[in-house]
Amino acid sequence: MGKVKVIKVNENVNALNDGIAAGIRAQMNDQHTLFLNVMSGPGSGKTTLLAEVINSLKDRYMIGEMDVDITTSIDAQRVADRTGVESIQIHNGGLCHIDADMTARALEAYNTKGLDLLILENSGNLVCPAEFDVGAHKNVMLLSVPEGDDKPLKYPLMFSVCDVVLINKIDTLEYFDFDIDRVSGYIHRLNPEAEIFPLSAKTGEGVYEFCKWIEEHIRNLKDVLINGSS
Amino acid sequence: MGKVKVIKVNENVNALNDGIAAGIRAQMNDQHTLFLNVMSGPGSGKTTLLAEVINSLKDRYMIGEMDVDITTSIDAQRVADRTGVESIQIHNGGLCHIDADMTARALEAYNTKGLDLLILENSGNLVCPAEFDVGAHKNVMLLSVPEGDDKPLKYPLMFSVCDVVLINKIDTLEYFDFDIDRVSGYIHRLNPEAEIFPLSAKTGEGVYEFCKWIEEHIRNLKDVLINGSS
Repeated sequence: MGKVKVIKVNENVNALNDGIAAGIRAQMNDQHTLFLNVMSGPGSGKTTLLAEVINSLKDRYMIGEMDVDITTSIDAQRVADRTGVESIQIHNGGLCHIDADMTARALEAYNTKGLDLLILENSGNLVCPAEFDVGAHKNVMLLSVPEGDDKPLKYPLMFSVCDVVLINKIDTLEYFDFDIDRVSGYIHRLNPEAEIFPLSAKTGEGVYEFCKWIEEHIRNLKDVLINGSS
Repeated sequence: MGKVKVIKVNENVNALNDGIAAGIRAQMNDQHTLFLNVMSGPGSGKTTLLAEVINSLKDRYMIGEMDVDITTSIDAQRVADRTGVESIQIHNGGLCHIDADMTARALEAYNTKGLDLLILENSGNLVCPAEFDVGAHKNVMLLSVPEGDDKPLKYPLMFSVCDVVLINKIDTLEYFDFDIDRVSGYIHRLNPEAEIFPLSAKTGEGVYEFCKWIEEHIRNLKDVLINGSS
């Protein structure tokens, strides 16, 4: 059995990641591009929701989309097929997350200049993606009703780092033991500032309210950067 | 920004992990204890199913259960409350998986001698747990209907390393676009030997067939070890 030497590189790796992330945010600020990082567990409906959202906004804004997956291009293809916007697939080679460096390399290959909105669909995982700042302005996470309302108790870091929680698949509320008030209480105990939007990507219910939130933040970003107000 | 030195330790770490895993399996063989590692994404219903399974088998077999979670003891408590069997919680300190060393340390603190069956409920994640042999005899994974039937395409390693795939929440099939034949085709393309059991932990449908599978493997293990046949 081989000897293993343990070397502490975490602190340096995090400092490096956060530096690259800050650089990405600066680039997005220069371009006036709102950059959203969308996270969730597997099968919570990110791809379907993002296609809905992009279709609602694409007539008024220039939008780009990036998808992270281990090996396939299914999600990027679905978004491109359903919306017509340019979508690129990032293969993370079996890793459970994407970090700022991988995001930066994807951005080198993808011309995002002129975009009002750039959406990153992160890999389906409630643990690892929460640990990496990818340079987004806002972290958005999806929790779907069938996953259960105890998830904030079990994945506290994810619910702590997100600015918005979308409760997806509310059209199935009657089939599952899921209480929106209870889950909202759990989320706000971890993260009092989190905004919560119950919605259904399938029926469209509640999607408008989330789109309004995105539009407000696209406008805020341009106002702050053009007028210098904050 | 700190300098980062990259050191390749993967090979040694894997060799070390696999050595510890083999030791755990030898211990389980000595004890005639069937050890199952149960994996899935978040919210697929592992805890509910395992409580059902344990309740079905506990009158005939001595059963132990271990739960992995980042920080809470919700799942272990639920299993203990619902079944009365001893259940221990392993806190993995924010990691996305459990490896053989963590399992071995949990086993030191937990007297498993005399058990016919030991079940490890792994952390809710379709990526990282698939990479670590924890010393179990069989890997069992759950995929729930609301997660979608494309998951084998997106998380191929998980579906490749499991001996059994349980398709849970089949009571909700009419509400979701999920085709059991299609998902079975995807699974068998990756893993022709995988056994697939559609079931519902909520209604109990199909749980009997999975319990029969467990009983068969408890018997096989004892037969092989006592009679030396294989």
